Amino acid sequence: MGTRAALLTGRLPVRNGFYTTNAHARNAYTPQEIVGGISPDEILLPELLKKKDYVSKIIGKWHLGHRTQYLPLKHGFDEWFGSPNCHFGPYNNSVCPNIPVYNNSEMKGRYYEEFEINVKTGESNLTQIYLKASLDFISQQAVAQRPFFLYWAPDATHAPVYASKRFLGKSQRGRYGDAMMELDDSIGQILAHLVSLGIHNKTLVFFTSDNGAAVMSGPLQSGSNGPFLCGKETTFEGGMREPAIAWWPGRIPAGTVSYQLGSVMDLFTTSLSVAGVLPPDDRVIDGLDLSPVLFNNSLLDRPIFYYRGNQLMAVRIGQYKAHYWTWSNSWEEFNKGINFCPGQEVPGVTTHTQEEHTMQPLIFHLGQDPGERYPISVESKEYRDVLRRVTAVVEQHQKDLIPGMPQLNMCDLAVMNWSPPGCEQLGKCLKAPESNPWKCDWPH
Amino acid sequence: MGTRAALLTGRLPVRNGFYTTNAHARNAYTPQEIVGGISPDEILLPELLKKKDYVSKIIGKWHLGHRTQYLPLKHGFDEWFGSPNCHFGPYNNSVCPNIPVYNNSEMKGRYYEEFEINVKTGESNLTQIYLKASLDFISQQAVAQRPFFLYWAPDATHAPVYASKRFLGKSQRGRYGDAMMELDDSIGQILAHLVSLGIHNKTLVFFTSDNGAAVMSGPLQSGSNGPFLCGKETTFEGGMREPAIAWWPGRIPAGTVSYQLGSVMDLFTTSLSVAGVLPPDDRVIDGLDLSPVLFNNSLLDRPIFYYRGNQLMAVRIGQYKAHYWTWSNSWEEFNKGINFCPGQEVPGVTTHTQEEHTMQPLIFHLGQDPGERYPISVESKEYRDVLRRVTAVVEQHQKDLIPGMPQLNMCDLAVMNWSPPGCEQLGKCLKAPESNPWKCDWPH
Repeated sequence: MGTRAALLTGRLPVRNGFYTTNAHARNAYTPQEIVGGISPDEILLPELLKKKDYVSKIIGKWHLGHRTQYLPLKHGFDEWFGSPNCHFGPYNNSVCPNIPVYNNSEMKGRYYEEFEINVKTGESNLTQIYLKASLDFISQQAVAQRPFFLYWAPDATHAPVYASKRFLGKSQRGRYGDAMMELDDSIGQILAHLVSLGIHNKTLVFFTSDNGAAVMSGPLQSGSNGPFLCGKETTFEGGMREPAIAWWPGRIPAGTVSYQLGSVMDLFTTSLSVAGVLPPDDRVIDGLDLSPVLFNNSLLDRPIFYYRGNQLMAVRIGQYKAHYWTWSNSWEEFNKGINFCPGQEVPGVTTHTQEEHTMQPLIFHLGQDPGERYPISVESKEYRDVLRRVTAVVEQHQKDLIPGMPQLNMCDLAVMNWSPPGCEQLGKCLKAPESNPWKCDWPH
Repeated sequence: MGTRAALLTGRLPVRNGFYTTNAHARNAYTPQEIVGGISPDEILLPELLKKKDYVSKIIGKWHLGHRTQYLPLKHGFDEWFGSPNCHFGPYNNSVCPNIPVYNNSEMKGRYYEEFEINVKTGESNLTQIYLKASLDFISQQAVAQRPFFLYWAPDATHAPVYASKRFLGKSQRGRYGDAMMELDDSIGQILAHLVSLGIHNKTLVFFTSDNGAAVMSGPLQSGSNGPFLCGKETTFEGGMREPAIAWWPGRIPAGTVSYQLGSVMDLFTTSLSVAGVLPPDDRVIDGLDLSPVLFNNSLLDRPIFYYRGNQLMAVRIGQYKAHYWTWSNSWEEFNKGINFCPGQEVPGVTTHTQEEHTMQPLIFHLGQDPGERYPISVESKEYRDVLRRVTAVVEQHQKDLIPGMPQLNMCDLAVMNWSPPGCEQLGKCLKAPESNPWKCDWPH
């Protein structure tokens, strides 16, 4: 997923390669047949933190490529417990293998096999397993008095949604609410653990998500995007805006609210700043150092660019968002019942054809109209003023842009997780089909 | 407005008369040409509180009828400062008079005249005036050590939205945000005043609204309904669900969240309970005593009935809501650009024709689907179970229902606020046209 690569590189997917040029304006994700992954030319956050002797661990979903050369321990992480892809399944291991779960560089089993998820009852202990791994890792670093970076990436709220027995049926929000309640409880345990170890005053904890609620999965497998338009897979606010909470007792006053426009890429730059490491100076870094925001509640003026593939769809500047292209999904998909904007329809905005508005972008004031429902009149002075500002920013951005080599263009059934390292000891190696690569056909 | 009559009588509009039987399934509000008002047979909250020597004052909008016999001091209030209707306008006083502002039983001026609202700049001191009146009233009762009921009903957030100079342009949310900020500041001042007078430990403060955001007014004149469907004028959640905050230091623990399904009618019964007064026993009271909810965080199981006129549109039981009729507004209005669900459309739900679903109501689980976007499949066991429960509740409700005499059926230009009491001293009496009553034609 482009978000995770952006988080770890501090760079837009169109720069770090996590995008496709197939079929103009398609979103990126990484199913098992993806040939590409994170480029060896990219420098990831844990590699940089090593300069200050940080130990880095990722727990949970990686999604930066599942072939051996792309895995976390090849890109700066010291430890890993989790999976390269989502927990989609169960598969029958003939047409498609189940997703492996790794401990460091070797698989320890597969989802739906050694790592059980009961799709019918929704029961799975995975969040508890990932929680325990995080508490153990934190304890070890605290005892050794080593600085650490823990990237805790559970995916229990991704369809098929699951929770452990203690949480199933406990929320007022169905299975999705149960999963959310378990995550909330887990984060509470992680924070309490930091406090009990006495390292809370030197630990920055940041909580956020990689996309808006997947409202196409219906209420039982997804959250709600509240007032925002559409959901995951779109460049409307429902797809792109997420809550973000920063915690650092003694440094960040509890209960502070910031109106800063942020991006997960900022976590790269902010983490480096907090660790006292300089970011790479040989490439464009899109992430901002949010330290002044976190510690002094400053407000930094910055644009945010919304892409699908290598197509700039929209730009946000302050409270304004200008859409250069609009697309929810295709008529073909929509007519099959796949709807990224269920219950929502803004004429001329939630379009099922890819609509270009480059000469006269649709502009919304997100403070007054968080739902992107009332485009500002093109005849107003406000529109002309905003367009002038946005145009200058976009022209500068496009002039400076050097796209990376696209990693999400080619697919091949042979590259799926048939025989991950470690499968021999477990007797769980599967036979891959012959290589037969094709240009990936992104459905949306 | 039916809500305000329901609040003060503890009874559904269909019982207390605040509804119409014209043109099946229309919402109720009270423009100046309305002939009716609150029936003399209804018993209002301040009348009952008198049994325990409460002094009652309403500050702001009344809306229970503007003809002399319907005004607050005829129905139990000891004092009034405010207006009988909304602050719509400005009018030219020939076709339509501006709305009068009363002090007790006499008008002191009119909106847009003595009580200025600058529609162009959005500036008005009215909220400050209403705030000062409330602080003065509270001080007087505290000094006299008399129990009091203050019904503070400002309407600054109703279009045309206004704020005073200190707040204009101060929010990030346009003029509506400015008005909201001023209301928030005012409520803060009222609470601080109670504390400074040392009566906060014996005062229950309840904050709520009479309908969801009027999203048809666009973002500059209305709030957002967040995840909820449609807005004011509809029986979807966006029209009916509002925030509610109760404050009573020492009795209600700060920060408590309740999942109780409440209604403004409960404020009637709860206020009586808190004051130690029994509700009338000669009529059906729909309001519940929320004391156990407020003081012990209990949960009371109760249905809520959603009406338009005398038509039962929907019923809520627990987390479920069943729609017996759906209607957003007419095609005729919609085609003129009046839209109560801007940006939202749920096929078969947000209908522009009045659709009956009595034999197979649309059922939503509002916990999992607050936006009423995913009707529960009629073929599921869940649907059948819920329908059985809802049907029993509705049948009982309809069996016991005795509708009141409808007050909102007749209109007449002669009854408008031409010559309110007190107009003579001010020289502000206007000449009414001849009486020519008609059956009100409700637009939605």
